[in-house]
Amino acid sequence: MKKIVTYPGTFDPITNGHLEIIERASKIFDEVAVLVAKRDEKNTLFSLDERIEIVKSCVTHIKNVKVDKLDKLLVDYLKEHKINLVLRGLRSYKDFEYEKEMFEANITMLKDLEIIFMIATPHTAFISSSLIKEIALNGGDVSQFVPKEVNKRLKEKLRR
Amino acid sequence: MKKIVTYPGTFDPITNGHLEIIERASKIFDEVAVLVAKRDEKNTLFSLDERIEIVKSCVTHIKNVKVDKLDKLLVDYLKEHKINLVLRGLRSYKDFEYEKEMFEANITMLKDLEIIFMIATPHTAFISSSLIKEIALNGGDVSQFVPKEVNKRLKEKLRR
Amino acid sequence: MKKIVTYPGTFDPITNGHLEIIERASKIFDEVAVLVAKRDEKNTLFSLDERIEIVKSCVTHIKNVKVDKLDKLLVDYLKEHKINLVLRGLRSYKDFEYEKEMFEANITMLKDLEIIFMIATPHTAFISSSLIKEIALNGGDVSQFVPKEVNKRLKEKLRR
Amino acid sequence: MKKIVTYPGTFDPITNGHLEIIERASKIFDEVAVLVAKRDEKNTLFSLDERIEIVKSCVTHIKNVKVDKLDKLLVDYLKEHKINLVLRGLRSYKDFEYEKEMFEANITMLKDLEIIFMIATPHTAFISSSLIKEIALNGGDVSQFVPKEVNKRLKEKLRR
Amino acid sequence: MKKIVTYPGTFDPITNGHLEIIERASKIFDEVAVLVAKRDEKNTLFSLDERIEIVKSCVTHIKNVKVDKLDKLLVDYLKEHKINLVLRGLRSYKDFEYEKEMFEANITMLKDLEIIFMIATPHTAFISSSLIKEIALNGGDVSQFVPKEVNKRLKEKLRR
Amino acid sequence: MKKIVTYPGTFDPITNGHLEIIERASKIFDEVAVLVAKRDEKNTLFSLDERIEIVKSCVTHIKNVKVDKLDKLLVDYLKEHKINLVLRGLRSYKDFEYEKEMFEANITMLKDLEIIFMIATPHTAFISSSLIKEIALNGGDVSQFVPKEVNKRLKEKLRR
Repeated sequence: MKKIVTYPGTFDPITNGHLEIIERASKIFDEVAVLVAKRDEKNTLFSLDERIEIVKSCVTHIKNVKVDKLDKLLVDYLKEHKINLVLRGLRSYKDFEYEKEMFEANITMLKDLEIIFMIATPHTAFISSSLIKEIALNGGDVSQFVPKEVNKRLKEKLRR
Repeated sequence: MKKIVTYPGTFDPITNGHLEIIERASKIFDEVAVLVAKRDEKNTLFSLDERIEIVKSCVTHIKNVKVDKLDKLLVDYLKEHKINLVLRGLRSYKDFEYEKEMFEANITMLKDLEIIFMIATPHTAFISSSLIKEIALNGGDVSQFVPKEVNKRLKEKLRR
Repeated sequence: MKKIVTYPGTFDPITNGHLEIIERASKIFDEVAVLVAKRDEKNTLFSLDERIEIVKSCVTHIKNVKVDKLDKLLVDYLKEHKINLVLRGLRSYKDFEYEKEMFEANITMLKDLEIIFMIATPHTAFISSSLIKEIALNGGDVSQFVPKEVNKRLKEKLRR
Repeated sequence: MKKIVTYPGTFDPITNGHLEIIERASKIFDEVAVLVAKRDEKNTLFSLDERIEIVKSCVTHIKNVKVDKLDKLLVDYLKEHKINLVLRGLRSYKDFEYEKEMFEANITMLKDLEIIFMIATPHTAFISSSLIKEIALNGGDVSQFVPKEVNKRLKEKLRR
Repeated sequence: MKKIVTYPGTFDPITNGHLEIIERASKIFDEVAVLVAKRDEKNTLFSLDERIEIVKSCVTHIKNVKVDKLDKLLVDYLKEHKINLVLRGLRSYKDFEYEKEMFEANITMLKDLEIIFMIATPHTAFISSSLIKEIALNGGDVSQFVPKEVNKRLKEKLRR
Repeated sequence: MKKIVTYPGTFDPITNGHLEIIERASKIFDEVAVLVAKRDEKNTLFSLDERIEIVKSCVTHIKNVKVDKLDKLLVDYLKEHKINLVLRGLRSYKDFEYEKEMFEANITMLKDLEIIFMIATPHTAFISSSLIKEIALNGGDVSQFVPKEVNKRLKEKLRR
């Protein structure tokens, strides 16, 4: 049976940290389904469609990855698609505590849910989407922290 | 002398986690005064009056609980009511660090203040009001995490 | 009904931090029972009898405190004495995490157990028995951190 | 290709927490190889052979689990067996920080190593081998926290 | 060569905690350059000009301190002024984790950057600008937590 | 006036992490005094004399570093040498919490003591002396984590 793992997130925008996790997961599982979550657009820099488009353009080099929209609760998406495996990256113990709470809430709502975690390597552990946006908004150079496509999109978005 | 303990919070809305703490406290102290704090209404789902009303309807089964409005600094409320005992729940070490800072600030302002803490049981430790709202706003079922009245109110509020 | 709270610990030796918690608790509860726990004597500086004796000599100024030996599991002591209330001090989030695990284990073994916590004030939060012993063993002055009796006993013990 | 995941640990003794992780992993991977690590026997309650024997007797109900001895560095075992996947359980953020350091050290020594993590459910998160031993040594009942075989073995070991 | 250390922050408003760090730093380094960072004015209580003015009025008693505006990325300011030393205060482990991420991002952008840290004393560790604003907005007395000038300014600002 | 900073530790043995901190400090301060602390020799792999010798041999390339023995309380050494500046490295938030307690205890004993901290870079943050010893004792290769001299000494020590 094909082992599919979902990797949900906001990806506003996708960073080298996210990409590292996707690449590592693609070597373990048969398919990685990146789920780009809908958010109140007042709170994101890129729209849901833009975020999906950008993620897609950044994972073309990995064969067993697909990108999908997540516009409902994660547990509802999983039930609908008959998937029970979720992957999350952990950058620090703060991420851990948040993930622990979400894990406990989610297994209460979906008994056979399974969440596995990967720790970010030191090269990417400090990279977060909010840090990227903060640096970019202040005119800084984020090219070491994000895929080329994202760097280009950030410049376009902030030039307007 | 009657031992009164105050239990201040936003309760937007009250959850099974809050209720657990209130029930446990009611067995130790002569009276538990739940203090529902005023907040900028742009930032709460329910109004102050609604939050008070909901808390009241959820604690009717506990004899020695009363519910009051907290529309000033906690230390000022305590001075006015000649109470010096406060109870707070701890869900995780993140709560702890926040509570530690508030404790240190508060005892600087009110020397004989005493704050005691209870750790949430594993059944409720992951439940927070913000998690409840996030799940409910995304169409999820929160009936396992909140009292019946809250579940009903959330549905009414979000249907509008 | 008299509200008795137990305050278990190793007290090797009792510090100003422990004493602060006992004094604060004695103002809230009718009786504070300090429980000095038996330990493998290879691992303590003072024997169980010495530790009990020292604690007793340090709490004589507080009327509603008694000191007892804890030579079994805490939950067994509580069952035997028909007490269900335990008090623990929290010095930092590290204490918190340890206490959380012990709380979860203990309520599994004794359903109606209740543990409440007090946060140490900044004046004593950094004081631990092991720090005291480390300073004293290196010839340092611990008189600001422990009751007079403890200071005297440490000097006697280390002079030998 | 068969996906084998290793689950290394001391298992002194194996607890319901370990067993939960093994059972969850056995549903995701083709094979789970439980690796029982050699330790200085002065520091363990059970000998390496006893620990292996006990683990084996506790996993007989899971088909795709095998138990092996780990008497060298984990990275050397993995190189030798051409496995690159390791599983670790996370009980709290303290575990996380330790695991993060080990992950960073290990990927420096073995570039294509991959470690994945599972968070313990609230039912087992507070259970550790050292807690079990502490309770058992004090005459407490650990039957809710460990498999039957372990409970029996602990009683035999401590009766002697 | 003169050792200059920069101390960047938002200072909305400056507190006794910030002042303590500046005073301690002024005894170690030849010059302390307090850098008041530009922020989206929707999110600050005081404007950038007000914040600079207030900081200046609070450090007049320390000879080797100067105050400057930070309206670009910190690393760009440092490059421009040929300074490579930054000072940050640490109030708790939460500050630490944030600072660690910023340190790792900043040394990626400016190789010879050096950041040093000072831990706040227990007298000020619980004081944060956001706590000050919360207390002041609720009519509380913050005179123990901020310099006189700040107390006066807060009253003026909130009276309007 | 010459700015001297002390860098106390056990250095059992010195690692690339320690060396990084010493090198960074030597660029900020006029002199770095590495203080190798006496410990109960049952608990260290190398004797005090060996540890001092090894540290000395590893810092010969840095001009403004000297190495000294610390065989008393740090505060007593500082008083005697009329130095008030201490440097400590921070690898993780766990280090932070420990350092915070030591800072608070030490400033109680020596009022004008000043401790500054540097955060380890991601390349060395996971390296600790105890990790090095664990890997070396299990036959692993630690040459990426320690200076050449230490690698040689570890092999000699463990061959015996």
